[in-house]
Parts: sequence; structure tokens; C-alpha cells
Amino acid sequence: MAGTLPRSPLAPDHFPELPIIDGVTFAAVEAGVRYSGRLDVMLALCAPGTAIAGVFTKSATRSAPVLDCQAKLGGKSDAGAAILVNAGNANAFTGRNGTDAVATVVNRVAEATDLPPNRVFTASTGVIGEPLAHDRITRHLSALVTAQQPGAIADAAAAIMTTDTYPKGATQTVQVNGSDVRISGIAKGSGMIAPDMATMLVYIFTDARMDQAALQSLVSATADRTFNCITVDSDTSTSDSLLVAATGASGVDVTHSDAFADALHAVMLDLAHQVVRDGEGATKFVEIAVTGCVDDAAARTHGLSVANSPLVKTAIAGEDPNWGRVVMAVGKSGAPADRDTLSIWFGDTLVAERGWVSPTYREEDAAAHMKNDHIRIRVDCGMGDGNATIWTCDLTHGYIDINADYRS
Amino acid sequence: MAGTLPRSPLAPDHFPELPIIDGVTFAAVEAGVRYSGRLDVMLALCAPGTAIAGVFTKSATRSAPVLDCQAKLGGKSDAGAAILVNAGNANAFTGRNGTDAVATVVNRVAEATDLPPNRVFTASTGVIGEPLAHDRITRHLSALVTAQQPGAIADAAAAIMTTDTYPKGATQTVQVNGSDVRISGIAKGSGMIAPDMATMLVYIFTDARMDQAALQSLVSATADRTFNCITVDSDTSTSDSLLVAATGASGVDVTHSDAFADALHAVMLDLAHQVVRDGEGATKFVEIAVTGCVDDAAARTHGLSVANSPLVKTAIAGEDPNWGRVVMAVGKSGAPADRDTLSIWFGDTLVAERGWVSPTYREEDAAAHMKNDHIRIRVDCGMGDGNATIWTCDLTHGYIDINADYRS
Repeated sequence: MAGTLPRSPLAPDHFPELPIIDGVTFAAVEAGVRYSGRLDVMLALCAPGTAIAGVFTKSATRSAPVLDCQAKLGGKSDAGAAILVNAGNANAFTGRNGTDAVATVVNRVAEATDLPPNRVFTASTGVIGEPLAHDRITRHLSALVTAQQPGAIADAAAAIMTTDTYPKGATQTVQVNGSDVRISGIAKGSGMIAPDMATMLVYIFTDARMDQAALQSLVSATADRTFNCITVDSDTSTSDSLLVAATGASGVDVTHSDAFADALHAVMLDLAHQVVRDGEGATKFVEIAVTGCVDDAAARTHGLSVANSPLVKTAIAGEDPNWGRVVMAVGKSGAPADRDTLSIWFGDTLVAERGWVSPTYREEDAAAHMKNDHIRIRVDCGMGDGNATIWTCDLTHGYIDINADYRS
Repeated sequence: MAGTLPRSPLAPDHFPELPIIDGVTFAAVEAGVRYSGRLDVMLALCAPGTAIAGVFTKSATRSAPVLDCQAKLGGKSDAGAAILVNAGNANAFTGRNGTDAVATVVNRVAEATDLPPNRVFTASTGVIGEPLAHDRITRHLSALVTAQQPGAIADAAAAIMTTDTYPKGATQTVQVNGSDVRISGIAKGSGMIAPDMATMLVYIFTDARMDQAALQSLVSATADRTFNCITVDSDTSTSDSLLVAATGASGVDVTHSDAFADALHAVMLDLAHQVVRDGEGATKFVEIAVTGCVDDAAARTHGLSVANSPLVKTAIAGEDPNWGRVVMAVGKSGAPADRDTLSIWFGDTLVAERGWVSPTYREEDAAAHMKNDHIRIRVDCGMGDGNATIWTCDLTHGYIDINADYRS
């Protein structure tokens, strides 16, 4: 269970040093929603004028807090904003009780922070189908407000974990028009990870200034190339939420800045990769680059088919360069492919081309690549210019261990 | 590897007694295509006038023998027919060499049996991407022809196994117009099992008489309700082939017989279930009945989403009635669903209704059902009359054990 799993062998060495983002403060508490002896509720408060953009799961059974957040995005407001997240209970498939719990929490946060309820965003992550004991959250609200600190983002990252084996953070500082703007983000997620949207809970804060519509457009496009390109187990959460808050406190407008867009992309990709690296039971980080397809969508379909194939994922776990299973996964995906124009590489080793094993292929070369903990598979369909890159992890005994007994 | 795995705990007690089908004979040999010390090539010979129908994988990277069989089906012929199958090598993604190997084997079988080449059907199952050592097959052809016996179908069932832990056979005898007609079939398959088509290699023989077009129509429709409703790991083989041979030797025309159609359905469903029961690492046989959907296709989409969800499959392995994961899998499937009209049963226990846990639900009831080795999950979408039933197995450490080291 959460907190008792060994740290992923693919984890970064340490949580990064995240700079303070002007205009946002954090606090976290041990509320005992489900877990005990650990932080499990976090509250972030953003300054007046903050623009909030978001991307959410497309699940038909999405959770009550997701539905509430979706209804609130896009509204114009000069008020500040609050983001409250609990771990341990997803408040998903909890019927009317779930909707009521969200309303109660939102209203109590609004009272405690002097914000309008439509500027209070919540998320819940954990077990599905059990009522959320919202009083365990609300009784800590005044403490959460009192304890707010600009530098407490690491506590917030820890408070949103479930089966994660490490907290996830990423940051970029970029110059726009001669001034620094900063982006810092946190994420949780290790299983029930697949597009759409990707994954999990992600909160990113920047002191840049951007209006809500432009920020939403940028965030949506960037999510498609980052969080929507990762998969751990092909299972899509009912709670996936990504919020990006731009406080504007730096005074720097980044609306047309490519440098800012690149930096935001870097933060989102870093967090997305960290989620994959914490994939339940993962021992290998796997990059699947698909090129030469009839269009980008076909490349994405092939890439996800390879990334989600249990046979490919177990072969990688076994360090077996079993490229036949990659052929199988491309063949089954439903997107256009031609056996006789397909080429496959493991690492830098060309293993198959023109419908058969390459004449230069030596299995020991591919086998050597499979010993790494960062595996690169490239598939070229030889049919066009469409491309996509998908990131995933292997499928191991650890995944079975974690998921055959999640609720106990 | 093949032959060394322990017999599936879900296996039937013994291979069934299969009656002789007039008009067909069998033989099998230890050819050493890849395995040693076991039968690995089988030849079945059907009498002149036999109608052959088939269903094959839709993979874009399907194997050379599949392409060859597909090209031959549907032709009218009064000649007999031969079916030759090897295990150990799939002859898939083997380029020009693969096509040549099929042609060589077909021509040599035709010579040895005095049949036209377009009445010789072959299949290969096993590792993908390695050249088929076809001389290891062809050098045994005269022995395979000489050894033909009407009663040797069990040897044929054994010869086509790869990671199967038991040979699979099924039979039905049915009265049509006062006369008995018999159907006997064999199958192999335990991993890389998913629609379409389902699965694996299946050969069914009957002494009924039916013209090819009518037989093809019946077989295609019945495959959609049997082999195309099973999944082990969502991975679709490049070699999946189902052939049904109607020798006509009983003299009984079954073209409009519902009894025959029902009996054929029973044989196909029995074999399909046996494949699931031999799913790699399986410890639970799982039936997912989906009702109340907007149409049958939506029900099938929901059923397959539940059946292929690693989180559902691992929960079943852990005997955890984690119905929240069923909600998740329905939500992500993409087919229409409404959280508030969804109902879910584990066994006979109603666990969720109207968007939340049922007021009558006691977890110990569902938990008791999960201890069985035949798990029944029912999902009702409350939206219409569409329904489908999907069969699968759980996802266990055994699947990882088998597939992280398949080629060694």
C-alpha cells in the first residue's frame, strides 16, 4: 500500500529544488482520509488575477470533483483561486453523495479563504466507490489556511501520492523579454495510467501572465504531446486532472512566447516521464518512437498498441529483444501498416526491415540494449510522414503484487 | 516452455473421447521444427467433396500461411483437402522466405497426397520472425501420409500446442432428419489471444453435408459469438486460423438445420472456453455479461474493455471484489455509458446501482464469490437492449513468468 512500496528503481535521485512562484502558497496536513501517519490533503492558494487552465479525463464515469472542475473552467474572474486535493479516496462512482461531498468541501474552502465557490477547484484520488469522509478534510481547513507558505510545494507533492513510490516535481526558469518567469509543477500517478487524458493529478504553477483562453489552448496542445502520450497499463482513471495556474505575479506577459511554451512543455514532459518511471512494478523506462506513418494519428495508434501490449511489456521485463511481438502489436492496432515496408530498431540496432529480419542483425546487439533501464524502440512504417512518441514501462511481477491487493 | 508448464488449474479433467468423423483421417509426427521429444506437425486428410470454410486474423502483419489459406477459401472443388500444421515457428514476418516456405510445403503436400495445391491448407504457430525450416516438415510427409488413421485426432490436438498446457478437443453429435451427424474439433491457444478473430488455431471436422458458401456464412456468424468473444491478453496473433471441414460422408444435408447450427456453436464455444481456461497463468475463468446497452456493439466494447483491463484482471487474481475498477473500465471504453444508470453484479450479488454502491451490498457476499474459479461479472448499462458476453481469465504472476522468457 501507499508508503510501504519500495522506491521505484527508475526514480530520480531526489525531489528537485522548486523555486518559489510568486502569487501561490501551499500547505498540507495529515487528515487521515484513508491513510494515517502521512500528509494526505493539500491546499494551494493563488493570488487574485490568476488564470486557471485544465485538462481532464474523458471517462464516461468520471468523478464528482472532475465534473465540478470542468464546469468551473473558462469563467473570467479576478478573484484568487484555491486548489484542494485529497489522497486515499477518489470520490468517484459515489452517486449523489459524491456530488454533495464536493459541494460541501468547496463551500467550506470558499468560506475559509474568502473566495467565491467557482474559484475553488478540488480533486480526490484513491479508491473508487466509497463515500468520501469530507469532514476529515473540512476540519483541517483553518489549519491549512493558517499554514500557507510559498515554499511548501514539496509537502503538496507528498500529500497527493497514492501508490506512488516518490513525490514528483519539475521546474523551468525561462527569460521572456529580458525577465525571468518560473514554472513549477507537481504530479501523482503510477497506475491506472493511460490517455485520455493521461493519467493522474498534475498541478503546475507559474508567475507568468497569460489570459485564460490562451493558457487553455497552450495547455491542451501541450498535454496532447506529453501526458496524453504516456501509458502504464492502458487503464484510464476516473479522476485524471491537470490544472495550470498562471498567477501573473512576474508581470511578464508570455502569450506569444515560444520560450515559455517550450519551458511549459519541458515541465509537463518531465512530470509525465516521472509518472511512467513510477509505473507500478516498473523496472524499465520505454520510449516508442513511431515514424513514417500515413499521419500522426496512425503513428500514435501504433505506438500505443505497442506500449500497451502485455506481450511486448513482459518481453521487455525479461530483457528479451522479441521484436516479433512488436510486429504483432503494429499488426493488431488497426492503423495502416504494410508488413513489407516496416522497419524496427531496438536501441540503435536495426532488427527488421522489408518484412523480415535485417541481414545485418545480430541478436546480441539488441540483447545488450535490453539490459539498459531506458529502452528505445523505433518503428518506421515506410508509408508517410506521420510520427508520434509514446512512453511506457515494462510489465512485471511488481505490477501484479501491487494490484492484486490494492484495497487491503 | 511448451510442455514444461504445469497443467492449468482450470483445465478439464481429460481430453474428451472424440468420435470418428467419416471422411477425415489424421497423423502427427515428432519433426523437431523447434521442439524435440514431442509431436509438432500434424496432417489431416479430408475426402473428396469436403467443403472448407474459414475465419482468420485481421492483423495487418498476418503470417504467410494465413495469406495463402485466405486466397484458397471459397473456391469450388470436388477434390479432397489436406490441412498441415506445425508448431514452434509461426512463419510470420519472414518476408519472401516465408512465402516461399509456404509454397514449398504446399507443393510437397500436394505431391504426397495427389491433391491440387489449392486444396492444401497450412498453418504455422510459434515464434515470429524466424525462418521456417520447412525441410524438417517435408521430410516427414510420406510418413504422415502412410500413418493416416481416422482415430488419431488426439495426436493432432497435441501436435499443434505451443504454450498450451493441455490439448483441446470438443464434440457434439446431433440428429438431423433422423440421422446422426457428428462434429469434432481441436484447438490450440493460450496467449496472444484476442479478437479479431479470436485467437489461435482451430480445426473442426463434421460428416455433415453443406455447400461451401452456406458453411462459410454459418462459421463466420458463429465465430463472432464464440472465438471473437474471448480474450486473454488483448494481443492478437498474426496466425489466427479457424477451419471447418464438412466431409458430407454422413449424407445428411444440414444447410437449414438449427440443430446443426446449435451443435456447431456448442463445439466452438467449448473450444473457445478451453482456450481461455488455458490462458497463460490463468487461475480464474471469468464471464463478463453486459446488458442494457444502446446496441450489441456497445455491449461488446464495454465487455472487452472490462475483460482486457489489467486492473480488473489483477483484482480478480487477488480475489478482490474491486467493482470500482469495473466502473473505470466501462468509463474508459468509449462506448456510451451513464454513471447513474449503471448496475454491476459480482456473481448474484448486486454491488452497484444508480451511480453508487447498492444499499443491500455486503462486501463479504461478493468476496465469497471471488473465491470461486469461475467468476461471473454482470454489467447493465440501463440504456437499451444491446448485450454481449465476453470470456477471459485473470492476470497473474504466471503470465509474467511465461512471457518474460518465452523464447529461451
